[in-house]
Amino acid sequence: MTRPTPHLDRVTVPSDLAALSDAELKHLADELRADVIDSVSQTGGHLGSSLGVVELTVALHAVFDTPRDKVIWDVGHQCYPHKILTGRRARMNTLRQEGGLSGFTKRSESEYDPFGAAHSSTSISAALGFTVGRDMGEPVGDAIAVIGDGAIGAGMAFEALNAAGAEGRRMFVILNDNEMSIAPPVGALSKYLSGLYASPLGNLQTMAEGIEAALPGPLRDQARRMRQMVTGATGGQGTLFEELGFQYIGPINGHDMDQLLAVLRTVRTRATGPVLIHCCTVKGKGYAPAEGAADKGHGVSKFDVSTGAQAKSRPNAPSYTKVFGEALAKLGETDPRIIGITAAMPGGTGMDIFAKAHPARMFDVGIAEQHGVTFAAGLAASGLKPFCAIYSSFLQRGYDQIVHDVALQNLPVRFAIDRAGLVGADGATHAGAFDVGYLSALPNMTVMAAADEAELVHMVATAAAHDSGPIAFRYPRGEGEGVPLPEIGTPLAIGKGRITRQGTDIALLSFGAHLSTCDKAADLLAEQGLSVTIADARFAKPLDHALIRKLARGHRALVTVEQGAVGGFGAMVLHLMAGEGLLDGSLAVRTMTLPDRFIDQAAPDAMYADAGLTATDIAATAAQAVGAKIGQTAI
Amino acid sequence: MTRPTPHLDRVTVPSDLAALSDAELKHLADELRADVIDSVSQTGGHLGSSLGVVELTVALHAVFDTPRDKVIWDVGHQCYPHKILTGRRARMNTLRQEGGLSGFTKRSESEYDPFGAAHSSTSISAALGFTVGRDMGEPVGDAIAVIGDGAIGAGMAFEALNAAGAEGRRMFVILNDNEMSIAPPVGALSKYLSGLYASPLGNLQTMAEGIEAALPGPLRDQARRMRQMVTGATGGQGTLFEELGFQYIGPINGHDMDQLLAVLRTVRTRATGPVLIHCCTVKGKGYAPAEGAADKGHGVSKFDVSTGAQAKSRPNAPSYTKVFGEALAKLGETDPRIIGITAAMPGGTGMDIFAKAHPARMFDVGIAEQHGVTFAAGLAASGLKPFCAIYSSFLQRGYDQIVHDVALQNLPVRFAIDRAGLVGADGATHAGAFDVGYLSALPNMTVMAAADEAELVHMVATAAAHDSGPIAFRYPRGEGEGVPLPEIGTPLAIGKGRITRQGTDIALLSFGAHLSTCDKAADLLAEQGLSVTIADARFAKPLDHALIRKLARGHRALVTVEQGAVGGFGAMVLHLMAGEGLLDGSLAVRTMTLPDRFIDQAAPDAMYADAGLTATDIAATAAQAVGAKIGQTAI
Repeated sequence: MTRPTPHLDRVTVPSDLAALSDAELKHLADELRADVIDSVSQTGGHLGSSLGVVELTVALHAVFDTPRDKVIWDVGHQCYPHKILTGRRARMNTLRQEGGLSGFTKRSESEYDPFGAAHSSTSISAALGFTVGRDMGEPVGDAIAVIGDGAIGAGMAFEALNAAGAEGRRMFVILNDNEMSIAPPVGALSKYLSGLYASPLGNLQTMAEGIEAALPGPLRDQARRMRQMVTGATGGQGTLFEELGFQYIGPINGHDMDQLLAVLRTVRTRATGPVLIHCCTVKGKGYAPAEGAADKGHGVSKFDVSTGAQAKSRPNAPSYTKVFGEALAKLGETDPRIIGITAAMPGGTGMDIFAKAHPARMFDVGIAEQHGVTFAAGLAASGLKPFCAIYSSFLQRGYDQIVHDVALQNLPVRFAIDRAGLVGADGATHAGAFDVGYLSALPNMTVMAAADEAELVHMVATAAAHDSGPIAFRYPRGEGEGVPLPEIGTPLAIGKGRITRQGTDIALLSFGAHLSTCDKAADLLAEQGLSVTIADARFAKPLDHALIRKLARGHRALVTVEQGAVGGFGAMVLHLMAGEGLLDGSLAVRTMTLPDRFIDQAAPDAMYADAGLTATDIAATAAQAVGAKIGQTAI
Repeated sequence: MTRPTPHLDRVTVPSDLAALSDAELKHLADELRADVIDSVSQTGGHLGSSLGVVELTVALHAVFDTPRDKVIWDVGHQCYPHKILTGRRARMNTLRQEGGLSGFTKRSESEYDPFGAAHSSTSISAALGFTVGRDMGEPVGDAIAVIGDGAIGAGMAFEALNAAGAEGRRMFVILNDNEMSIAPPVGALSKYLSGLYASPLGNLQTMAEGIEAALPGPLRDQARRMRQMVTGATGGQGTLFEELGFQYIGPINGHDMDQLLAVLRTVRTRATGPVLIHCCTVKGKGYAPAEGAADKGHGVSKFDVSTGAQAKSRPNAPSYTKVFGEALAKLGETDPRIIGITAAMPGGTGMDIFAKAHPARMFDVGIAEQHGVTFAAGLAASGLKPFCAIYSSFLQRGYDQIVHDVALQNLPVRFAIDRAGLVGADGATHAGAFDVGYLSALPNMTVMAAADEAELVHMVATAAAHDSGPIAFRYPRGEGEGVPLPEIGTPLAIGKGRITRQGTDIALLSFGAHLSTCDKAADLLAEQGLSVTIADARFAKPLDHALIRKLARGHRALVTVEQGAVGGFGAMVLHLMAGEGLLDGSLAVRTMTLPDRFIDQAAPDAMYADAGLTATDIAATAAQAVGAKIGQTAI
């Protein structure tokens, strides 16, 4: 299946590209594209984005002097061709797997990854940092941020453009615009640029204008219309970027190697200030099954290269995401005040299900979590019931808004927090580790976690019924436990947990989806003759005082278990127990949380094993706690 | 001193304005301005911003139907005239004081404050929320966001403009632009607008163009130049806003009541989509000492109305802010890699002191904490030593960037966190309550708090010397303890605390500036015959294991004390103790933190009393902890 790759075989590091002619670089790009397809067909991954930047990747590494020059891929899911060209080709079969390459750029992985990514819209800020470093004498060359048309719409990117434009330092932003599926006219433009590259005169501004002027009539009109479509500008330039202080060049065809090389060589030679190159690409380019797919092959599982058919996994249970979407859509039928909000993740959060049922009541705010949260606060202040569905790690983007606009004003915004805990192949950047802590510290906030998908249905109902303040509920990525689902959720009593197993020696107090793991731990402990009570706390805030008192007084050890970092559920329990004097006696107390390090990607179970949160780990900790009391270790 | 206010006396609520003619509204505005000056002269406060919007406030309440229509003041420090017109005139003498009116808008204070503020750039998101509420049938009228030219530059405001423009719903954004001190020409414009208001035809776009066209030649040119200055646009309109989907009107003179009334009446009658009114005002308008001041009277203490002379407080000790700025400036003399970053707070953070000494190395990124943090990460990745000085509560805006760009990549960004703990007159919105928790949960992060200003000097040196990862140090608002300052700081041993007083019964483990309060508590306990050890933890992360073990094993009770919320220092100590089995014995443990509610403004000492963190509170808690063991209460 694998085709010969004579040009690609000559490239181990980017400096090898210097030996290739422009014509050879084109062949290289073709081989690189095929290599990406072959590679992702075996591992799954972010195919479409990577295929869209094959030529751009080759051109950047051919023109710029990496790793001294810093190419910063925003979000990073388009970095597969970059990884292949920067010494990681042989390891591409380990992508997104335990011990393997990250699915994103990562500083610790390669000197060619100057700034890791995964969350969007950070690249321009980072590039400005490197640029100032260069100007201050650090051993750094030019910085080039490559950012998509979705990511550049986030407030953070605007802040960075604003700052970079004002600074006026030489740096490059490549706007990778793949919304436009028709590439711009090429021949004359490319020729003009090549000419400019060699010519001794003209600043970039003149160049941009000149490009358009040099085109024959119909092409000129087409180029102008295209530019206007993208920038909304009626003048000759992309005024939005120019108003922010950038020189604007484009749009150019991101799949035309001649054009790319000419533009990049020109700006590298000539630029004295910040330059934005508007580069149009096609997501999934060059692979028909990706180009033809609705999502342009954004994220794929393993697939057959010849047909594009993806390996289907057979789920044992519906995903938490789907259960959430369906439960909310159902509640929306009887409650017209329920509003759905997602930040560019309608499919990932299940909001697409709600939107299908209630199209006028779902708002996709784009990559704009800050706005999304405060918009939700405004909706709540007007009397509506907003459900703000944002992944745990992305909700960090709206933290101040949660504190200042939601919690402080005690507005009933509902936070549906998907991807809580460790998430698998996306690794540490996407882990939902901190939300329980950063939310439970806030006055007025109610914080829940679902032990299984049936609990999630009840928590959706609980949130809908909770009008007296903000409320959040978290649940993991992936399949549920396979428990029967209720037809409709029943609101839970706020601040009340439940005992799911009654014992006498040890109390395991679980918060969230590790409840089934606690059950396995209890079985292991039972084998050691230790009788275990299991409680599902349901709420990290408010805590169930009576339940915790009962557990503390009726057992020799109490162990909290959660899918999150220190400072979260366990900390809240300890604070409560300290305040009530429950720590003053001989009870042994342990908190089991994620460890104080970031956990690299692997299967979720493997990640929890890495984190020390398996059933065996829990049993061992509990037994040791009791053993310490009785002078021996039970396991 | 107080002049008669016959018009203002007729207004108790905004609906009273209906009885006033346009001419009377002008008189009212004059009286309102004088009332604001008189009032703030007695309380201190945000004078300049409030004086700049006197006419705008009158016009908004005269034209719109508040509280059904929602006027949302961004940041809220310009809301004093609004408070006076909305039933709070008699309480203005309590402004920013304990039990008094908030210095900002506040939902719980008045139905005329539909959305509270204090942090900037939230108003457009909130206004869009109310607008959707209106369209969904909630009992809400039009939403009007009033936002300054600084605040509109934040990414969050851009996200909101982008969303509101795309939604296309009828709503209003008033850009209160006070950077331009020359007001636009008035007569013809005002007349034209008044005419349009009455005329049956023309959309707003046409109106905006028509305004300019209707002006006589020289005025027309002047208006056009002014517009270009502000918008950077070379065409006929403010294209930045129009590209985002807004109708743009302006610039108009925000101190010309006729013009304001005409424009607002016109847009209220005609608008069908989002409208941005570019309104030019003068900060401090109408009060010479404010207009003439460098900061335009932004924040003043009590003053003499006739002279503008402010009451000066005599500090007993230099402020932490000043100590930080001077220590950093000093280190910058010998270390050229030190870079300063502030987000629009050079004076508030002491970065102005650093900038004066090292002007090329200080970057004020504006209200752009997200960019500021990732920019710092880029600087660190390039080899520089960025000090990112951001108030605790504003650092919440950059939380995801701290997690994803700094901690995850283990980049040595230094966070100087001013305004930690309770801050006084600015109240709950500005309290630095959560930083210890949200930072200590992050792998790779080091977290310090300064017990006094000499400690702060050492911590600046510690941070400068710490190249192996990110590090944060927090310190309170206001004066230090008056301790002698070292000439130059000495880097502290990472993760090591110190014992400042040795006793036998009770250990007080302090983190941060409550150390002196702990000392007073120890004196109170000594009076009860209880011998107290005091330790200054210095680090919340990494914790001093040996110190905590020693305190736990050598005393009957251990009490942690911090100026922050649950989930912070005390939680980290409890986690550690649980893990080491130190909670399994008879030691009594208590954590003293801010309570689970937001604390309203008062003097800082009064706020800490409200929070239950006085020396007496600490002594009582410690005694009770021991008393519970010995069967009696010591206090």
